[in-house]
Amino acid sequence: MIIVMSPAAQEAELNAVIERIRAAGLTEHVSRGTERTLVGAIGDERALSEQVFEQMPGVERAMHIVKPYKIVAREGHPSGTVVDIRGIKLGGNQIQVIAGPCSVETQEQMDLAAAGVHAAGCRLMRGGAFKPRTSPYAFQGLGVQGLELFQRAAREYKLPIVTELMDVRMLDTFLEHDVDVIQIGARNMQNFDLLKEVGRVNKPVILKRGLSATISELLMAAEYIAAGGNHNIILCERGIRTFETAYRNVLDITAIPVLKRETHLPVVIDPSHAGGKAWMVPALARAAVAAGADGLLIEMHPNPCEAWCDADQALTPKELTDLMGSLRLIAQAVGREL
Amino acid sequence: MIIVMSPAAQEAELNAVIERIRAAGLTEHVSRGTERTLVGAIGDERALSEQVFEQMPGVERAMHIVKPYKIVAREGHPSGTVVDIRGIKLGGNQIQVIAGPCSVETQEQMDLAAAGVHAAGCRLMRGGAFKPRTSPYAFQGLGVQGLELFQRAAREYKLPIVTELMDVRMLDTFLEHDVDVIQIGARNMQNFDLLKEVGRVNKPVILKRGLSATISELLMAAEYIAAGGNHNIILCERGIRTFETAYRNVLDITAIPVLKRETHLPVVIDPSHAGGKAWMVPALARAAVAAGADGLLIEMHPNPCEAWCDADQALTPKELTDLMGSLRLIAQAVGREL
Amino acid sequence: MIIVMSPAAQEAELNAVIERIRAAGLTEHVSRGTERTLVGAIGDERALSEQVFEQMPGVERAMHIVKPYKIVAREGHPSGTVVDIRGIKLGGNQIQVIAGPCSVETQEQMDLAAAGVHAAGCRLMRGGAFKPRTSPYAFQGLGVQGLELFQRAAREYKLPIVTELMDVRMLDTFLEHDVDVIQIGARNMQNFDLLKEVGRVNKPVILKRGLSATISELLMAAEYIAAGGNHNIILCERGIRTFETAYRNVLDITAIPVLKRETHLPVVIDPSHAGGKAWMVPALARAAVAAGADGLLIEMHPNPCEAWCDADQALTPKELTDLMGSLRLIAQAVGREL
Amino acid sequence: MIIVMSPAAQEAELNAVIERIRAAGLTEHVSRGTERTLVGAIGDERALSEQVFEQMPGVERAMHIVKPYKIVAREGHPSGTVVDIRGIKLGGNQIQVIAGPCSVETQEQMDLAAAGVHAAGCRLMRGGAFKPRTSPYAFQGLGVQGLELFQRAAREYKLPIVTELMDVRMLDTFLEHDVDVIQIGARNMQNFDLLKEVGRVNKPVILKRGLSATISELLMAAEYIAAGGNHNIILCERGIRTFETAYRNVLDITAIPVLKRETHLPVVIDPSHAGGKAWMVPALARAAVAAGADGLLIEMHPNPCEAWCDADQALTPKELTDLMGSLRLIAQAVGREL
Repeated sequence: MIIVMSPAAQEAELNAVIERIRAAGLTEHVSRGTERTLVGAIGDERALSEQVFEQMPGVERAMHIVKPYKIVAREGHPSGTVVDIRGIKLGGNQIQVIAGPCSVETQEQMDLAAAGVHAAGCRLMRGGAFKPRTSPYAFQGLGVQGLELFQRAAREYKLPIVTELMDVRMLDTFLEHDVDVIQIGARNMQNFDLLKEVGRVNKPVILKRGLSATISELLMAAEYIAAGGNHNIILCERGIRTFETAYRNVLDITAIPVLKRETHLPVVIDPSHAGGKAWMVPALARAAVAAGADGLLIEMHPNPCEAWCDADQALTPKELTDLMGSLRLIAQAVGREL
Repeated sequence: MIIVMSPAAQEAELNAVIERIRAAGLTEHVSRGTERTLVGAIGDERALSEQVFEQMPGVERAMHIVKPYKIVAREGHPSGTVVDIRGIKLGGNQIQVIAGPCSVETQEQMDLAAAGVHAAGCRLMRGGAFKPRTSPYAFQGLGVQGLELFQRAAREYKLPIVTELMDVRMLDTFLEHDVDVIQIGARNMQNFDLLKEVGRVNKPVILKRGLSATISELLMAAEYIAAGGNHNIILCERGIRTFETAYRNVLDITAIPVLKRETHLPVVIDPSHAGGKAWMVPALARAAVAAGADGLLIEMHPNPCEAWCDADQALTPKELTDLMGSLRLIAQAVGREL
Repeated sequence: MIIVMSPAAQEAELNAVIERIRAAGLTEHVSRGTERTLVGAIGDERALSEQVFEQMPGVERAMHIVKPYKIVAREGHPSGTVVDIRGIKLGGNQIQVIAGPCSVETQEQMDLAAAGVHAAGCRLMRGGAFKPRTSPYAFQGLGVQGLELFQRAAREYKLPIVTELMDVRMLDTFLEHDVDVIQIGARNMQNFDLLKEVGRVNKPVILKRGLSATISELLMAAEYIAAGGNHNIILCERGIRTFETAYRNVLDITAIPVLKRETHLPVVIDPSHAGGKAWMVPALARAAVAAGADGLLIEMHPNPCEAWCDADQALTPKELTDLMGSLRLIAQAVGREL
Repeated sequence: MIIVMSPAAQEAELNAVIERIRAAGLTEHVSRGTERTLVGAIGDERALSEQVFEQMPGVERAMHIVKPYKIVAREGHPSGTVVDIRGIKLGGNQIQVIAGPCSVETQEQMDLAAAGVHAAGCRLMRGGAFKPRTSPYAFQGLGVQGLELFQRAAREYKLPIVTELMDVRMLDTFLEHDVDVIQIGARNMQNFDLLKEVGRVNKPVILKRGLSATISELLMAAEYIAAGGNHNIILCERGIRTFETAYRNVLDITAIPVLKRETHLPVVIDPSHAGGKAWMVPALARAAVAAGADGLLIEMHPNPCEAWCDADQALTPKELTDLMGSLRLIAQAVGREL
């Protein structure tokens, strides 16, 4: 950590800073410049808080030099993590498209959806049994019954399932129903108690970036899970909130190369939630694969006009099949397979 | 709801829209303009989703006309709600300043803090036993023991206590320890299961606005609590996330008059978390009272330099007392008392 | 336009709204719902301002139904515009990569740059003679002399040149030096006097989106140019400003499909300024082509370590050549050529 | 400046950094930590660019330690600047309210407006003759004729006038018409050629913060003006662009204490443009004065319903007079006068 003293700082104030560094078990390194005196704290600076120094008299600013995340950092773990989901590899050379409806509605809908996912050549299926909805008056998902309908449909095609866990009290139920990948939604990215609990199980977790979460906060949320012992974490960028109102969210494509550099965890993209409209999905999906994503989460509904939620962002089975064809070409262009 | 048909829409597409409106139990009203045909849906439009219409062929856009919140809306509930906290009124003419440390640390610290809060003339006390921290390696709060230390200190001065609930499984413990006001933190504003649970108890709730939550989302989160039966809700603006990096967050002062117009619930402001620096707190607190806030949440620590978290945003007891003096003058200038 | 009356609106207030609609030469269409009365204004609503109605007593809200842009709208102009730049087509099936250094520095640098641009297979060259710099103490560009060095280098390879115009008083000089494409920078996107002036000449214009400009504002800025008679406009997305601090700006990839739907003008992407780091450029450039961009603006410097500005975002000639190879594959995957 | 070397940096890479520091006339100070080696550059670091170092091999990051602004910085200029506008002091103990219509429309409108401004006790008048409008089809202002109408009305009450300059070619006309304060609008905050020109005259300048400009960028824009010799600069915060759509912009009240700390220049607030609705103006204006603003820019129109632009944000003369009364009490509460 670097502590920048203010121009008017007294010698006693500098000494207080030095004492505090030493009290934390680190050593100081003082550098007197022409306009400012700097103090470097040498040792494991994660033990120090910028705030503790910034409120000390004579201190102008304190800055961490190393990143706050450890287990999930690429530094010290140069090769990428490949998550194994019942034999399907996510994070390797093969790109995975996880498709399925926004919410589980009926057995028939899920059977048709599973057939469509399989026919399109996707190897994993998504669907929501518990739905985070802005309004208390909106459909909240079928709950446990939804998990059952989902598994019944997916097993027919041997598709591992991905579904969202919202309430920590439901974790055991998810394990009993053998959910293959637990999704943590964007709104729960900093629900720290939930992160701690999924950190204790050995199921893969897809962690979605919050609507206004920084890359650093996303990685710290992953660090919560990893710190509990569960290293099977997949990060998901799903659009961020900005000033723009012409579309729901802005897909942050830059997050892909940056995350691949900062962490060894796989990165998937959700183009359906980002744009909010089915007609935007192909362009965004292609961009994500071209930029280096390890996978995609795509909404597909056997009959979008009848969907119970997020109706206008779901592809039809036919549109999904077509998209898979064009994604295959892009994957090849960047040296991967789909 | 208004459905805007695209210029090229066919008559059959228009008819499909009309049928769907009727299927939901509403009636249509068609208006043919020079560039667009519009369809109004007459009846309780909360039963309709914009998305369902926006994915229908021939539809350009669908727009709600009425607001999605009901119980918390000022419309139909013109007089403001006054929340009674063990005899202290929040939302009436008297402005309440809720002061105390970021986190509960020791009995001595809490005793000194309670004495300072009382001496400054504040009637409610805040403090965190469970702390939402970005890093899994940071101090996470004293937990249940913290609640005990807090209550022991606050009771000495008959100060009702405000403390944050993060985990739904801890709600019973909060009730057992007789927490007076349950705080829902900014990161949990859309933790819908938590909102539903605090909606079922009869304790006042302070609901903090998420860092990038819109006014409408904040009110819908309050609606979740209200829909459960608990109408003792206090809204808190605590700074929003923007592009600016010179301070932690931007205190959204405009939210005060807008919320006072949109909802009958009381509105408090947290100037400490917004700015992130103790020296900014007085200016922001004064602005909040001048703009019409019903109360303030202010961090105060008996010894900020020794605080275990958010050290640089806490006022000293002396600074709090001084601030109360200037706030009293502002309150009078806007026809209220402190 | 739709005018939403408030629930408590009086009949006289409704009549005042109707009178104002008629005064503007439009006709009204009143629709009485269960919670609100709506008034539709039928005719060319671009003559009406939402604000005029929103301040009338009894009015809750006014909403435009049609988009404010006309000449640049895809509606009424279904085929895409192809801009011809000395025989090079931008906006057709062939994707154009416009490469070159951030700023013109020396004749030798520009000669090497032009050779590199040509060798990589690019057909257009960029470079800045007038530089918008945040600091008055930073290098402001070589000015007119820079235009001369640039033209001399580019002509050797018959490369049309693209360069930024900042000051309206310099337009004649640009014409005298036969600048092929005039670039309007992000900071000047709403410098309306500058837009009006370039609207009067018949040179192609690249209009960069402002850092926090909405899609609608970008199209209205283009409409300023088009309204003057110059329809050779190329839109450029170059990253938007958000809360994220891990990279300079967020490349808004969603803008590509949205702009292609809303306007007939070609869309190019500047991945160099968006990310701010050379190592991010290949991933972002590939994403842009995959998402449907008509062209790219890429910074390349013969010797990035010696560049006078934006040193860390420039590719080397070798890196540009490599990137062109991978972009060619992506272009083919989406049915285009490079 | 601090240069952080990456963990894998070679000795030769470190030496290259040191050489570059020396080449710029500064000296290095190397500090070897447990995880990173840091290099401090001692001397006037404004001569160094972070980017030049960040693209050197082995460098992870480079950070400026001192602020980039000099003339406008509070550091080295502890007492606040008081700008004298024909005898009216802005920046001293007295708070100035600058009121008037959005745009100059007719002589009668301006006469009534001037009378209202004077009657309310304001000492300066605002009004726009040249209007920056998002749409080329909207009223663009009366131009030079507007300046004449404005001066004629204002002189009657000896009110100095404030009006916006958009086009650098109009500066001489502004001087001929003896405009008292030149306003640079938010959209032109980084129109560097315009800043340079107003830096050469000796008229006070109100510089409005861009919609997404950081505090640092605002101060650097002021530095452009100051570097030309004109130190009579007044900064204006007028709302920033965020994700919130319930109001036009978010008034950034935190900017007031931060600017007062960072610069010696006076700070005024424009609550009319920030909120965009007349009913929000009183709350925002009171908050601004309470937070320490030196003045306000308030829209007032003798007949808001007939205003030609921004109709719904203008106060009536009566509302302005009432607001002045309450602002006077707030000013007293913070030890100032109105």
